[in-house]
Amino acid sequence: MNSLLKNLDVLMNRKSVRAYSDDKISEEIKNAIIESTLRAPTAGNMMMYSIIEVTDENLKNRLVETCDNQPMISKAPYLLLFLADFQRWMDYLKTSGVDEYNKENSLEMYHPGEGDLLLAINDALIAAQTAVTSAEMLGIGSCYIGDIMENFEIHKDMFNLPKYTFPVTLICFGYPTEQQKNRPQPPRYPKEMIVFENSYRHIESKEFKAMEIERNKISKPNFLPGCHNEAIHMYKRKITSSFMKEMNRSVKAAIDSWTK
Amino acid sequence: MNSLLKNLDVLMNRKSVRAYSDDKISEEIKNAIIESTLRAPTAGNMMMYSIIEVTDENLKNRLVETCDNQPMISKAPYLLLFLADFQRWMDYLKTSGVDEYNKENSLEMYHPGEGDLLLAINDALIAAQTAVTSAEMLGIGSCYIGDIMENFEIHKDMFNLPKYTFPVTLICFGYPTEQQKNRPQPPRYPKEMIVFENSYRHIESKEFKAMEIERNKISKPNFLPGCHNEAIHMYKRKITSSFMKEMNRSVKAAIDSWTK
Repeated sequence: MNSLLKNLDVLMNRKSVRAYSDDKISEEIKNAIIESTLRAPTAGNMMMYSIIEVTDENLKNRLVETCDNQPMISKAPYLLLFLADFQRWMDYLKTSGVDEYNKENSLEMYHPGEGDLLLAINDALIAAQTAVTSAEMLGIGSCYIGDIMENFEIHKDMFNLPKYTFPVTLICFGYPTEQQKNRPQPPRYPKEMIVFENSYRHIESKEFKAMEIERNKISKPNFLPGCHNEAIHMYKRKITSSFMKEMNRSVKAAIDSWTK
Repeated sequence: MNSLLKNLDVLMNRKSVRAYSDDKISEEIKNAIIESTLRAPTAGNMMMYSIIEVTDENLKNRLVETCDNQPMISKAPYLLLFLADFQRWMDYLKTSGVDEYNKENSLEMYHPGEGDLLLAINDALIAAQTAVTSAEMLGIGSCYIGDIMENFEIHKDMFNLPKYTFPVTLICFGYPTEQQKNRPQPPRYPKEMIVFENSYRHIESKEFKAMEIERNKISKPNFLPGCHNEAIHMYKRKITSSFMKEMNRSVKAAIDSWTK
């Protein structure tokens, strides 16, 4: 049993890597990451996702700006953009005689809805996390860039994205620098606050307080001016930030563009 | 190098498991799966997801019906429901004096939008796929039930889900039966149809045809009546099915309920 549990070390030890050594990632390794990613579970084996490897320097530099000014994006030796993709199915249906089928059966052409979008998003993220784990198994670090959901119209343009696609995550990959290797893992919420049985459970005030006390033991908190605790600090820094405002706008626009 | 690539076998050999042996999953193993899942990457370390372990037989039987009549759901020895969850942050903010902070700074209370929903969905799916990989490393099979996105109102009621949560995926776990162990992996699309460089690429008619020819070599196609190829078969069986119609309705209702 203990030896089996050792298998989980690669997952247990994972942390995001935001600075990369000069080591290139070989084509053989890239190919191995992709091959294992393609084996990720996918709804109905429909593979409602696509992956764009971003190699063009101009595109990489542009992404630094459009994804909330994160210079590491252009420094990552391997950069993968994951799309929710129902467009390939629309193209496949068209070339397979769906118009005739609809006519024979007196049907209107089908247009993907919010459910198809979320199912495709599921596929894309399941593949994305498989790529991250695959890289981890090969000693390669990674960092998710959720900010790719901002500036939808610009990214659509940059990558020639058709109607039934949505860029749901961007992942930077690279071998970690020594500093990154030695960086401690950030603490997560305790299990009892995340995992419930049979019913949702609201977390009580005292549980949040106890968590803060535990966290403060690990690292001295450094709050933004005017913020007297972690929740309010995050409220100011993340939740009500200009990038979240933009993400909310952009995602709404993307859903509208998909469904209208 | 070859020995490192061997690490990927667990991902390369993965296939969904839909029938489970009588072996129970021990508490030690469940705990190990959860512990490694909690180390999954999460946006801003905010853990915008929750996991509900479904152990109640009535709830399990009900899920069989509400998730498109899949009896395996009640037979899975370990069943995890993954929620996108911004509610915990709303509760945390409330207990941390956000009302006073807003008053002092002349701000209105923040309400999560579509961007927060999708970021929380990212977190939930990244955690879900970490759980799947973790189980796989321990010899435990799994199957995603995307149908949990149907019947939103019923699931909300069954699991007491508050406003800022969304049940995005359900996963059945169990040790595979011999039949499942020996089942061949289904073929995936060729890499060239999924992975692009710098730009989206529409797949050409001849590529779809070539893929169908390859697939037909592996297994004899068995199409629904009136469907003369795989695309039209999937159009009838999945894309225009009653369960996809319900999923589109349900997800739209869930987004509306989150944002209004």
